[in-house]
Amino acid sequence: MSTPAQPQPTVYLGGRFIPASEAHLSVYDFGIVLGATVTDLLRTFRHKVFRLEDHLRRFYDSCKYARMLPPLSAQETAEITTEIVLRNSGLLPPAADLAIVYFITPGENTAYAGSAAAGQATEPTFCIHSFPLPFRLFCRFFIDGLHLVTPSTRHVSPQCVDPKIKHRSRLHWWLAEQEAHLVDSSAMPLLLDLDGNLTETSGSNLLLVKNGTVLSPTPRNILLGISRKVVWELCVKLGIPFVERDLQVHDALTADEAFVTTTPYCMAPVTRFNGVAIGDGRAGGPVFERILAAWSAEVGVDIRAQVLHGTRKEQATG
Amino acid sequence: MSTPAQPQPTVYLGGRFIPASEAHLSVYDFGIVLGATVTDLLRTFRHKVFRLEDHLRRFYDSCKYARMLPPLSAQETAEITTEIVLRNSGLLPPAADLAIVYFITPGENTAYAGSAAAGQATEPTFCIHSFPLPFRLFCRFFIDGLHLVTPSTRHVSPQCVDPKIKHRSRLHWWLAEQEAHLVDSSAMPLLLDLDGNLTETSGSNLLLVKNGTVLSPTPRNILLGISRKVVWELCVKLGIPFVERDLQVHDALTADEAFVTTTPYCMAPVTRFNGVAIGDGRAGGPVFERILAAWSAEVGVDIRAQVLHGTRKEQATG
Amino acid sequence: MSTPAQPQPTVYLGGRFIPASEAHLSVYDFGIVLGATVTDLLRTFRHKVFRLEDHLRRFYDSCKYARMLPPLSAQETAEITTEIVLRNSGLLPPAADLAIVYFITPGENTAYAGSAAAGQATEPTFCIHSFPLPFRLFCRFFIDGLHLVTPSTRHVSPQCVDPKIKHRSRLHWWLAEQEAHLVDSSAMPLLLDLDGNLTETSGSNLLLVKNGTVLSPTPRNILLGISRKVVWELCVKLGIPFVERDLQVHDALTADEAFVTTTPYCMAPVTRFNGVAIGDGRAGGPVFERILAAWSAEVGVDIRAQVLHGTRKEQATG
Amino acid sequence: MSTPAQPQPTVYLGGRFIPASEAHLSVYDFGIVLGATVTDLLRTFRHKVFRLEDHLRRFYDSCKYARMLPPLSAQETAEITTEIVLRNSGLLPPAADLAIVYFITPGENTAYAGSAAAGQATEPTFCIHSFPLPFRLFCRFFIDGLHLVTPSTRHVSPQCVDPKIKHRSRLHWWLAEQEAHLVDSSAMPLLLDLDGNLTETSGSNLLLVKNGTVLSPTPRNILLGISRKVVWELCVKLGIPFVERDLQVHDALTADEAFVTTTPYCMAPVTRFNGVAIGDGRAGGPVFERILAAWSAEVGVDIRAQVLHGTRKEQATG
Amino acid sequence: MSTPAQPQPTVYLGGRFIPASEAHLSVYDFGIVLGATVTDLLRTFRHKVFRLEDHLRRFYDSCKYARMLPPLSAQETAEITTEIVLRNSGLLPPAADLAIVYFITPGENTAYAGSAAAGQATEPTFCIHSFPLPFRLFCRFFIDGLHLVTPSTRHVSPQCVDPKIKHRSRLHWWLAEQEAHLVDSSAMPLLLDLDGNLTETSGSNLLLVKNGTVLSPTPRNILLGISRKVVWELCVKLGIPFVERDLQVHDALTADEAFVTTTPYCMAPVTRFNGVAIGDGRAGGPVFERILAAWSAEVGVDIRAQVLHGTRKEQATG
Amino acid sequence: MSTPAQPQPTVYLGGRFIPASEAHLSVYDFGIVLGATVTDLLRTFRHKVFRLEDHLRRFYDSCKYARMLPPLSAQETAEITTEIVLRNSGLLPPAADLAIVYFITPGENTAYAGSAAAGQATEPTFCIHSFPLPFRLFCRFFIDGLHLVTPSTRHVSPQCVDPKIKHRSRLHWWLAEQEAHLVDSSAMPLLLDLDGNLTETSGSNLLLVKNGTVLSPTPRNILLGISRKVVWELCVKLGIPFVERDLQVHDALTADEAFVTTTPYCMAPVTRFNGVAIGDGRAGGPVFERILAAWSAEVGVDIRAQVLHGTRKEQATG
Repeated sequence: MSTPAQPQPTVYLGGRFIPASEAHLSVYDFGIVLGATVTDLLRTFRHKVFRLEDHLRRFYDSCKYARMLPPLSAQETAEITTEIVLRNSGLLPPAADLAIVYFITPGENTAYAGSAAAGQATEPTFCIHSFPLPFRLFCRFFIDGLHLVTPSTRHVSPQCVDPKIKHRSRLHWWLAEQEAHLVDSSAMPLLLDLDGNLTETSGSNLLLVKNGTVLSPTPRNILLGISRKVVWELCVKLGIPFVERDLQVHDALTADEAFVTTTPYCMAPVTRFNGVAIGDGRAGGPVFERILAAWSAEVGVDIRAQVLHGTRKEQATG
Repeated sequence: MSTPAQPQPTVYLGGRFIPASEAHLSVYDFGIVLGATVTDLLRTFRHKVFRLEDHLRRFYDSCKYARMLPPLSAQETAEITTEIVLRNSGLLPPAADLAIVYFITPGENTAYAGSAAAGQATEPTFCIHSFPLPFRLFCRFFIDGLHLVTPSTRHVSPQCVDPKIKHRSRLHWWLAEQEAHLVDSSAMPLLLDLDGNLTETSGSNLLLVKNGTVLSPTPRNILLGISRKVVWELCVKLGIPFVERDLQVHDALTADEAFVTTTPYCMAPVTRFNGVAIGDGRAGGPVFERILAAWSAEVGVDIRAQVLHGTRKEQATG
Repeated sequence: MSTPAQPQPTVYLGGRFIPASEAHLSVYDFGIVLGATVTDLLRTFRHKVFRLEDHLRRFYDSCKYARMLPPLSAQETAEITTEIVLRNSGLLPPAADLAIVYFITPGENTAYAGSAAAGQATEPTFCIHSFPLPFRLFCRFFIDGLHLVTPSTRHVSPQCVDPKIKHRSRLHWWLAEQEAHLVDSSAMPLLLDLDGNLTETSGSNLLLVKNGTVLSPTPRNILLGISRKVVWELCVKLGIPFVERDLQVHDALTADEAFVTTTPYCMAPVTRFNGVAIGDGRAGGPVFERILAAWSAEVGVDIRAQVLHGTRKEQATG
Repeated sequence: MSTPAQPQPTVYLGGRFIPASEAHLSVYDFGIVLGATVTDLLRTFRHKVFRLEDHLRRFYDSCKYARMLPPLSAQETAEITTEIVLRNSGLLPPAADLAIVYFITPGENTAYAGSAAAGQATEPTFCIHSFPLPFRLFCRFFIDGLHLVTPSTRHVSPQCVDPKIKHRSRLHWWLAEQEAHLVDSSAMPLLLDLDGNLTETSGSNLLLVKNGTVLSPTPRNILLGISRKVVWELCVKLGIPFVERDLQVHDALTADEAFVTTTPYCMAPVTRFNGVAIGDGRAGGPVFERILAAWSAEVGVDIRAQVLHGTRKEQATG
Repeated sequence: MSTPAQPQPTVYLGGRFIPASEAHLSVYDFGIVLGATVTDLLRTFRHKVFRLEDHLRRFYDSCKYARMLPPLSAQETAEITTEIVLRNSGLLPPAADLAIVYFITPGENTAYAGSAAAGQATEPTFCIHSFPLPFRLFCRFFIDGLHLVTPSTRHVSPQCVDPKIKHRSRLHWWLAEQEAHLVDSSAMPLLLDLDGNLTETSGSNLLLVKNGTVLSPTPRNILLGISRKVVWELCVKLGIPFVERDLQVHDALTADEAFVTTTPYCMAPVTRFNGVAIGDGRAGGPVFERILAAWSAEVGVDIRAQVLHGTRKEQATG
Repeated sequence: MSTPAQPQPTVYLGGRFIPASEAHLSVYDFGIVLGATVTDLLRTFRHKVFRLEDHLRRFYDSCKYARMLPPLSAQETAEITTEIVLRNSGLLPPAADLAIVYFITPGENTAYAGSAAAGQATEPTFCIHSFPLPFRLFCRFFIDGLHLVTPSTRHVSPQCVDPKIKHRSRLHWWLAEQEAHLVDSSAMPLLLDLDGNLTETSGSNLLLVKNGTVLSPTPRNILLGISRKVVWELCVKLGIPFVERDLQVHDALTADEAFVTTTPYCMAPVTRFNGVAIGDGRAGGPVFERILAAWSAEVGVDIRAQVLHGTRKEQATG
């Protein structure tokens, strides 16, 4: 559908670099038939990939857990990532940045697609592609803050699929989102685990601030987000205590501040939780601001400005 | 890849009948990005769709639960199903039969594909396609019986995604299968629920026989299989008690018989469970045989013969 | 505050019949300090108490469970109930009917009220009072049907306080209601148990209808409502199967009909569940109507008419 | 019942200071009908309120969680607290001290009281009152120590009502106490959570000492007692490690020391647990004594002497 | 220690009939080191084994579950049972009867006994022995009835060891009994499962009677007692409904009658439960009496008389 | 069976030192009938008992929990332990070492053995015995590493029997081992708790290493192994962080290293987990080696050499 005159992004799929418009999956791919897909999401700052090593370790750990063997070594994947960024950054406006997606599936079911797990897989499907970070979608998070809602749908237990891997069997997130939208069409679901502890949103980690301490759910029920790790490291640097423990709705409702961390937009304030204002209800409390400033300094980009104005106010690195 | 000379199956996708080779999903489809796909699987006997009404009710119930609105009414879907069977049966050898697949997704994420649940969907993706039932894959089930193994991976709770809907967020099934293969490369996983009760395999329901009674797990943790319903009705007809209750591994190991029910091959004996022989360890106990015979009579096809020989020994209808 | 000219209802409290305006509890009563109150709610039809014996059995069972010894025998309580109805019915318009409340607490903490469970109780506080059934509050239930919402707040486990007793430690119901109102200010919360099974609303039992069968949650997590028992008995009489089993949200969303049963207004249709229309979304399906008609016949009152018009269309008893 | 000559305590209720004998709640108050009451308990040392700010933060957090809006700001509540103490301390013997109670309910159900959660509330009921600390009831705790018993009744899950709020839907505590009294009429129940972890008594937090470390249950299942917080701070000051983790009955039975913390009497030794002597079975181990001495020094009151002799041996502040 | 003049019972052990005084297990037997022992208990009426076939099926099912292969077929075990009864009945007074015990272990650990599961077993240890039924110990059950107490210790989950097998890893029963004795030194523990449902005592099944129906816990958490099966069959014969469902403490406290079933003394009334009188608190309600009479008639022995007087009042068989 | 010429080990049983061949338990001992046995296992290094005080504390704590009163004080038990080592070490080759076993049971059931918990115990059975550490059985652990497998059988909950006590009701371990052997006949089961967290093997604690930190399951579900404590202390000394938290299968599969700790062979590498290689799949990662070297230095024995060669290469104490 794209006219040949317009240059298009490059995708790495099936061991080759191909134009995005040629990238297809077979409808018999196990990734489609079973949702058996392991994935990861990275981003660039100023067209350089951020925390590549951390993302590779998590992606390869996830593959090991899911017993899917990537056809490339971590080193080779790093090189192709760099190449994809190089090729696709050129298509961006200068102030923009890229999201990079990895995904792998067990491959195509050669026998037939209907009765799922019984067939045999071909070689794994392995893909690296990118897209421009759609900052305009994130603006309202920085202006109004997020409204998180705990639906009755619960997070999948680590006994079934461990949330510490990033994957695409995510129908429960779809269901949770529809339920959260009953409360507020712009709300995001924050899932409880089966014991009623706070976990995460479909794309970000939740952190609370109470009496000067940053509180996080434990690793049992969450993706160990790279952005969450960045915040942890910045907290250590800034002298802010960071504590992991089982948290409940009460902790969120009575927090002084709350915010999420995520690869595409790094951090965003949470201003409402189940309809209740968090703290004074304004976006961006003092702890949030200190960490965001430190992060912006580290990457040399004013993170909020880039989201709000689609421009990259350069920052002196701290 | 298929040469134009060869006629190919018809697929219904995007509101049109198209050749199978033209059926593709966008990599940004929510069905791929989230595994947010609701599905159903039907089969024909003698090129007539079996229990169409039951499958339609289950599929539309699943869509309602998953809050995906099919673009067609159940009546229209029935008509297109008939049309697909008509077109694609002609490509089959006479003794063969078809599997028909329905699936629906929320559609394509128009914004971007990376951070999943936040974007907006287009119209739902709705597809009906078929493939020949691969009987040769099922032969060994009738000859040797199945070996079921309970892996440590557990079934997803109905609090997350209700197993009563048929869907494709099935990574836990993939994990369970890899784990079961550690015991026996031909074993199938039979998942326990989070309380340790028996549930189902990835594509079939489990039934036990003890002291002349057929025992089934309760509806809490299983797909309410149409084949299971057929067996229940046949039991009523044959005077065999059929009881639903929470069952544990002990019940399976000490059963007189065990078998599974499933759309593609109707029923198959279970001869081993966690390495232990069920009953006398032979495929096909007396209760199994009575029910299979009654079913074959009902559909006018010798079900086992069709699987074993790829031929359809006609049966006088009971 | 009431002027002497206006006759006021009689209350039985402290072993005496007193005017309602003189009925007070000490702020040190355990019923207030601990919410340690066992209660029951009855109603009249045509100024006769309905199912008195059933209510007495449940109330005395609840007292036994809660280890509070009523100062009166069941027989004496029956007599006082009749007396209260006699006295207070006279204050009603002829088409109105009464609700009668029993409650008992361990009595007043004689030592001090602050640190709750450590003190000693006096004699139990035992009260019987009545109020006119406020039918105008129930009208919308018969016209629009109820909207039930499952909040993230869960029902208290029978390991803590058994829901089979009627009591007043009900803060979770208050929390659930505030949460349900985030979705719809007229919604009622339907609580899930800790395993995600459907239970009840704060004041009524839920029943579903699917394929002609009435389905109820099991006794584990619900009050064994007298109205629910009436419906069960009417189902037996009408030849409608009535089955108790663990039910999940999926069962509610895909039911053909749903309704609640409760003492004040007997039965009312549920037309929406978590924002989804039940069946065709209209109030009063065929099974509901058959049962309501039978009940009206049994008590000689057109139950719906009384609620809608505050009048008691007499019915020929079936 | 009190003769007018005798001065009586002042209560703050309905926005006014009134004599205690005039303080009444409507029997239709939601606090009575639903047990929907949020509360807090403070005490004085030498007629000064102890840790007022901590109690206010907890009370206002509890109100926020329970979605009841106090009619006064925290600052105003503080002022009224001071006024109540001022007025009511004068009625005390000099060595005595006061307990101060806050409570709030959603107010009176204006419609009718029978079918609980469905009605509409008026303005919240908000009350502040006080009573003399009944030290004579606590003497035996310091002399013999407490006997804690784990009944089969379990603590309410934070999924229903979070134990981190102080409230009055406490029927499970009443049940637990009756069960504990079967073992020993002077025993107090120590509830297990639904996973079998130690939680708290109805009015105090439990702390264990093993190998010189103070161990506490995690915040998931307990009120975050202000007295517990005082002990934590004193531990830090005294160089005693204080660790929160899930504890089981085994931890209590094999502890070197055990004690409880609570507002009315600060701390008391636990000498028996399920009939088994803790440590050497004597009241007041070395860690307990160090902390009690430090606390007494901090408030300038010999805490044990005040309880035992109803007198306030003054202490030089540390 | 027994003098040679006194004839002693015969034991079957190690494939041979030996005198009881020569029956020993190695301290390295897995039955001792691991408690890995599967067992069964039978009794005679008038020196004939009762329900031998039922016991054999259960014992062989238990062995299959526990993966211990008895060295004898069920037929051979039946023959040896008969022989043991023949030999040992002669040593009894005429009115007495025998208990017969089967047990099997994986055998002796040939390597070393310390670090349990790692070693290799020899041949299974398989033993059949008997002892006179000690009726004098059971008298009080028929006179006063049992007092059942629910300790905080819970029944082992079927996910660990299925209670449907009879085995000797029973330390939790020991713990539960010590805890129950804190309430009443003659009380027996009735364990709750991990969800708080009623299960069984260490040696008997619990049955409740309410409104004329016999209620039993479900098979998930109990041994499927042969005596319980006898009662079920007698209920069918007598037209008494017998229903299995999850039961809670509330059901026991509010039952009209309660009783236990067990091999050694068949049935006994429960008159107290957690200190509360069941029904009118007297031993032997009408349903209990009807069933006991029917059972006595079936076996031709007045079961209660035999227990109370050690004599066997013969009964005309019904 | 042993000829008198051959000297045999001494056992302490029944209050006396006796030859091993005379040590027997009654088949009516509660340790056999109920598996009600508390135990401990110690070892010597160079014929000196290692960490005697730690083992005594754990054993006496276990006895207290299990309500079995040892007939000897801890001091007396220490003396008898020394005596047993003195007597039995003389029978060893010089490079060998001893395992010492303590066990206690409630004693013999004096009434009868069949219906378990109802009878009365005599005096406790208390035994101390020893056996040579069978190093040849452990060789393969140091050469190939262990293969751990998570069976579907789960660890017993601390609500039933706390895993913090060492006891012999261990049938679940037997079942787990048979299940693990289905995967690999040399695999050891690593049990999950009922929530799916990693616990322990039947005879050792599991530790993981990730990013330089040693990770351990929390105390809730494991024996607090003395060897684990030694490793913890060595980690502190070596500056290696040691962290307790809930761990899942994902943590094991993605660890850099894994190893077990246990009294008989101190430590051994885990090289496979559910069929997946841990780290690079080789036995003995850098953290393991540092700790093993430090331990060897502390006890003056090259621990690995002793296991591999049955010889005790002496080490200079660090």
